Amino acid sequence: MVSSIFGLIGLKQFFATDNSTVKKHIYIYSPSGAVRDKAAFKRGVKRLGVLGYDVEVDVDALSSHMRFAGDDETRLAAIHRACASGADIALISRGGYGITRMLADIQYKSVAKAIERGMHFVGISDFTAFQLAVLAKTGAVTWAGPALCEGFGVGGAPDLQPDDIMEDCFHDMASGQGEGTGWRQSQPLAGAPVNIHHATIWGGNLSVLVSMVGTPFFPSIKGGILFLEDVGEHPYQIERMLTQLLHAGVLADQKAIALGQFTGFKLSTHDKGYKFNTVVAWLQSQLKIPVLTNLPYGHVQTKVLLPVGKSAELAAEGKDVMLVWGH
Amino acid sequence: MVSSIFGLIGLKQFFATDNSTVKKHIYIYSPSGAVRDKAAFKRGVKRLGVLGYDVEVDVDALSSHMRFAGDDETRLAAIHRACASGADIALISRGGYGITRMLADIQYKSVAKAIERGMHFVGISDFTAFQLAVLAKTGAVTWAGPALCEGFGVGGAPDLQPDDIMEDCFHDMASGQGEGTGWRQSQPLAGAPVNIHHATIWGGNLSVLVSMVGTPFFPSIKGGILFLEDVGEHPYQIERMLTQLLHAGVLADQKAIALGQFTGFKLSTHDKGYKFNTVVAWLQSQLKIPVLTNLPYGHVQTKVLLPVGKSAELAAEGKDVMLVWGH
Repeated sequence: MVSSIFGLIGLKQFFATDNSTVKKHIYIYSPSGAVRDKAAFKRGVKRLGVLGYDVEVDVDALSSHMRFAGDDETRLAAIHRACASGADIALISRGGYGITRMLADIQYKSVAKAIERGMHFVGISDFTAFQLAVLAKTGAVTWAGPALCEGFGVGGAPDLQPDDIMEDCFHDMASGQGEGTGWRQSQPLAGAPVNIHHATIWGGNLSVLVSMVGTPFFPSIKGGILFLEDVGEHPYQIERMLTQLLHAGVLADQKAIALGQFTGFKLSTHDKGYKFNTVVAWLQSQLKIPVLTNLPYGHVQTKVLLPVGKSAELAAEGKDVMLVWGH
Repeated sequence: MVSSIFGLIGLKQFFATDNSTVKKHIYIYSPSGAVRDKAAFKRGVKRLGVLGYDVEVDVDALSSHMRFAGDDETRLAAIHRACASGADIALISRGGYGITRMLADIQYKSVAKAIERGMHFVGISDFTAFQLAVLAKTGAVTWAGPALCEGFGVGGAPDLQPDDIMEDCFHDMASGQGEGTGWRQSQPLAGAPVNIHHATIWGGNLSVLVSMVGTPFFPSIKGGILFLEDVGEHPYQIERMLTQLLHAGVLADQKAIALGQFTGFKLSTHDKGYKFNTVVAWLQSQLKIPVLTNLPYGHVQTKVLLPVGKSAELAAEGKDVMLVWGH
């Protein structure tokens, strides 16, 4: 049953119909690193317009203070302006670094109220810190997805275009049509088919996520589906971070781990056969729950959007995985 | 008073007298990464002999399994052979990565018994995981100091020799003569002179230390002196790790933070003035306790040895710091 569905949808989120008629309002702001690639920023804003969105840009979206998009006060104010904007979607300009140090000062109630009124907060990478803290403090759902520049701002050469699967998933989220996603693992399940019900989807960037363990901003999720991705971290560093989650009891508390895309690292001659798949096999040997691979999410162009904090069902058989979160 | 003492001792540990007459027995083993630089290993063993030590090399000290010095079972057995060796000093061949994943399987009682019988476990970097877990599980004292290869195995060129301050400190530890250390900060204290009593010295490599937060292997030290060092981590990564300790309440629980050497990172044009000292100033702004700088410990040649888990006194005035742990 599962595989027949996968035959139809491939990587694309399913049940998607692009039938939104009212223009959705997107608010662009910069809570993390300074935007250096202004051309990508402009291309992203333009692209969202072409896609039929009404785009509003925060007054400090292009501010710069050292490596940050403005000092902490400036970036905090931008987050809170996004909350008050009444937009349908609050989309970060880019990731980088900067949210972790503001976690104690974010007005979580304002964020939760904005989400309650229908706002979709979307972002990736450093934005994981915001998403997990919002989940920990309020239980509200945010979306792991693209950032403006890396997602919609690609281009500048004829063969570089925003990824159409990512854009379709973004539309699905914006229109409330997306109900799930499916993908093929890099290797088949070792054990019996997996069927999981009522599990909270959560996770994000592994480095950012582990940097919150032991703090009041780390959500306490039991029986969840934990998804993880990272960029520029060697497999041994990935393993060390996973070990922290293992020893902290976080992994065993979940119903499944879904590993996304781990990219941008270099193996060395010292590794002598130690590689990312070594880490995956080791992790599976440490856990009774399934460790799924190849989730199309991470620092890559082709990625789905995932609702952090939403309850979901998951079915997996062989290489095929289906994740459904409904409306 | 403090500065007059500093005028005499400079960086060197004080009260040191090199009067040991009985040969100390050093056991060399490899709990972490595989030794690739066999020449450095040989030079280190030879150098320890020249310095008057009786050196024993573990049977698997030069084993290799992928990036590790043998598989987990092999490296665990090496740790436990070191415990049973009856040596005065158990010195790691090198750091790297590999202890974290064995933390649940180390026989901590055997380690504590060996320490009780007088064994000094010495190491750095990845060895921080062992040291903190031993402290958490048993309260026993281990030594942050050199590894064989990087400390005693330097050479191969006439101008490359083991650092004499490090070697003096090593002798002091081995002979039980070392009672403390002093150093000059990179910038003077902002506030009044500092006098701290009955504070546990603990810490090590920042990356390894934060990777244990939230796990049963992280020691719960109140009123301590926390020392930290790292290599190859950009200041923003250092800041993110410090932020985790801040948010987890670890930093405010201490009487002082002593930042060692943070080396081997590259700033970029994106940083625009954000640098290591920016992080230090930010950290001090977040804390009421003193943040001391330039502790001569880290991935550098000139370093002191520090007893992890031992009670100490600390005095600081201007740029001068004196740390005394007694016998």
